[in-house]
Amino acid sequence: MRDVAVIGIGCTNFGEVWESSFRDLFVTAGALALEDAGLSGETIDAMYVGNMSAGRFIEQEHIGALIADYAGLTTTHIPSTRVEAACASGGLAFRQAVIAVASGMEDIVVAAGVEKMTDVEPGASTDALTGAADREWEGFIGATFPGLYAMIATDYMNRYPLTREDLALVPVKNHKNGANNPIAQFRQEITVDTVLNSTLVADPLRLFDCSPITDGAAAVIVAPLERAREFTDTPIKILATAQASDTIALHDRRDISTLDATIAAGERAFRMARVEHKDIDLVEVHDCFSIAEICAIEDLGFCRKGEAGWFTREGETQIGGKIPVNTSGGLKSCGHPVGATGIKQVCEVVQQLRGEAGKRQVNGAKIGMTHNVGGTGATVAVHILGV
Amino acid sequence: MRDVAVIGIGCTNFGEVWESSFRDLFVTAGALALEDAGLSGETIDAMYVGNMSAGRFIEQEHIGALIADYAGLTTTHIPSTRVEAACASGGLAFRQAVIAVASGMEDIVVAAGVEKMTDVEPGASTDALTGAADREWEGFIGATFPGLYAMIATDYMNRYPLTREDLALVPVKNHKNGANNPIAQFRQEITVDTVLNSTLVADPLRLFDCSPITDGAAAVIVAPLERAREFTDTPIKILATAQASDTIALHDRRDISTLDATIAAGERAFRMARVEHKDIDLVEVHDCFSIAEICAIEDLGFCRKGEAGWFTREGETQIGGKIPVNTSGGLKSCGHPVGATGIKQVCEVVQQLRGEAGKRQVNGAKIGMTHNVGGTGATVAVHILGV
Repeated sequence: MRDVAVIGIGCTNFGEVWESSFRDLFVTAGALALEDAGLSGETIDAMYVGNMSAGRFIEQEHIGALIADYAGLTTTHIPSTRVEAACASGGLAFRQAVIAVASGMEDIVVAAGVEKMTDVEPGASTDALTGAADREWEGFIGATFPGLYAMIATDYMNRYPLTREDLALVPVKNHKNGANNPIAQFRQEITVDTVLNSTLVADPLRLFDCSPITDGAAAVIVAPLERAREFTDTPIKILATAQASDTIALHDRRDISTLDATIAAGERAFRMARVEHKDIDLVEVHDCFSIAEICAIEDLGFCRKGEAGWFTREGETQIGGKIPVNTSGGLKSCGHPVGATGIKQVCEVVQQLRGEAGKRQVNGAKIGMTHNVGGTGATVAVHILGV
Repeated sequence: MRDVAVIGIGCTNFGEVWESSFRDLFVTAGALALEDAGLSGETIDAMYVGNMSAGRFIEQEHIGALIADYAGLTTTHIPSTRVEAACASGGLAFRQAVIAVASGMEDIVVAAGVEKMTDVEPGASTDALTGAADREWEGFIGATFPGLYAMIATDYMNRYPLTREDLALVPVKNHKNGANNPIAQFRQEITVDTVLNSTLVADPLRLFDCSPITDGAAAVIVAPLERAREFTDTPIKILATAQASDTIALHDRRDISTLDATIAAGERAFRMARVEHKDIDLVEVHDCFSIAEICAIEDLGFCRKGEAGWFTREGETQIGGKIPVNTSGGLKSCGHPVGATGIKQVCEVVQQLRGEAGKRQVNGAKIGMTHNVGGTGATVAVHILGV
């Protein structure tokens, strides 16, 4: 297999973007990525698009072709493929792009992610998102994602030393980081009291524990490492791409507050990249709910099971801590356009490794990791990138 | 890149399968493919699943994980990825499986396709399928797929010598072939009169010009060619995998009765396989409507533009003719569970090249081709397989 590098990144503003359609969003992200790589559209060999549920959100399938068309790439009739794995759709699209280049099948490949979630009737987005869970055994009996992650939080807090205040420190830290991210949906800092006094969504999770409903798109361009310097002075090498699955229903798991797919994908990624935890300078984890970040840093092995509350309280996940987590602001502050999130994570790591993250910069960052989850952990994609 | 071979195939019966759920269908197809390859589930390294619109048909996304789970493959936490390109979803899932093995990333990979279309309210399937077209510029103004293909047929018949009777010969031939295919939805022969006297759907297309709404699943297993004989005495080599895109809306095309994506994908496939038209012993084309087969055999280059009517009338597309087309019965007789069709086409070619096609057998078939179309030609996948 050939080594692969990221040569361009682009990301729209995330938020309730009323002035932009689904099509506008991905065209914007793609154009930004092309500009970043100094490329024109005709040089693109193939495209992979992560999108969870345009069928439900905008009644549109066939997203690969739609995007190739509206991005002006059908003159060269490029292969364009949609990849879906719920909220991990972006991470899997990135992985397929990497495999396509690694195989030698393609050279310059766009991996994009897009979701337009806000332009639907009230309740419709929650119902569409439930399609990421087991519709027959979870959705039909009334479980929603806040409910499922609340069960994880309840179980976790019963078994391990994590207080409600500790849990609030996750969104407090992510909002602090996101305040310095120009694309973030919510750029204000919050306090533990903000979280504790916010509306109860699904006990023990409150409004500020939950990532929002968001419109947005992100794109990255990958190429063979040996050609990367034709396009950029700062190619970012993909050291590992890993993916794992687990039961789609939470109740079928061995342990509902441990994501075995995160453990499996993490181990595979560390093995492929031949690096250790101490080598990772920052990680973007999938904090769709605050408890998800707690589980992620444990299941990826950055601290031991049950210790993430203490680890977070000690500031070890902050910029300057042992392992900065979600320097972008994470899903909580950036927002979570589900198909785009996995690609946005890659954009953040690339910015950090290039030293272009401004006030969010982790000094001297050389190696970064992304962790993108579908559903309650039925799909997990982990990538490791390095300068 | 490594050479890749098909080592196992499996297909459910296609039809209105009331007794089987979406989950039952793909588990059945996968189990048949594993049995055919003499494998157990633990040996599978990864899975790609083609599915168009489970979000609309059964309110379920996250299809890769769902299938890995219900197929009992989550104990090894395999990567499982859904691929979507409307009615070409199956063809693209097969292509991604081939790329994954060719890259060296994986060894034993399942490519599956599934769709459960009949268990919805009247009209809902037509609306879901319209998600394969341009929802904003075609769907919202009332165009459906029979309507779009009727425009292609009208344009074609105005410009080229194709009579209504010639067009009827396409489903007549496909029903004749399908009568000998145990998985086909409609296994009775029909006559030209059956077609001409059937209900008008969208002028000039009548009921028997249109592929039906169908439930079904199909699966194939691919492996590195160098390992294929561990599993089967008759490995079928993948000589080419090609994919192309075009504008999603029909009215944006250069020529609405020529599918440029078919031309592009076909040329790429012939180049990659290093074979010529005369080397192809049979082809499965995407006859979602009878006119689509007429366009396909021209755009793939088996006859010249405008000559497919004559070519069909002369029997050149029948078994025993110059290029047998749709020996399986095609989408018309087999039925068209959209995500599964591209995989079923591969199953048919593999059966033919193994010499296991029974009364449908093309004598001495050594090389076969598949042609799978998304929408009105915005995505096309072409594969060439050989013994």
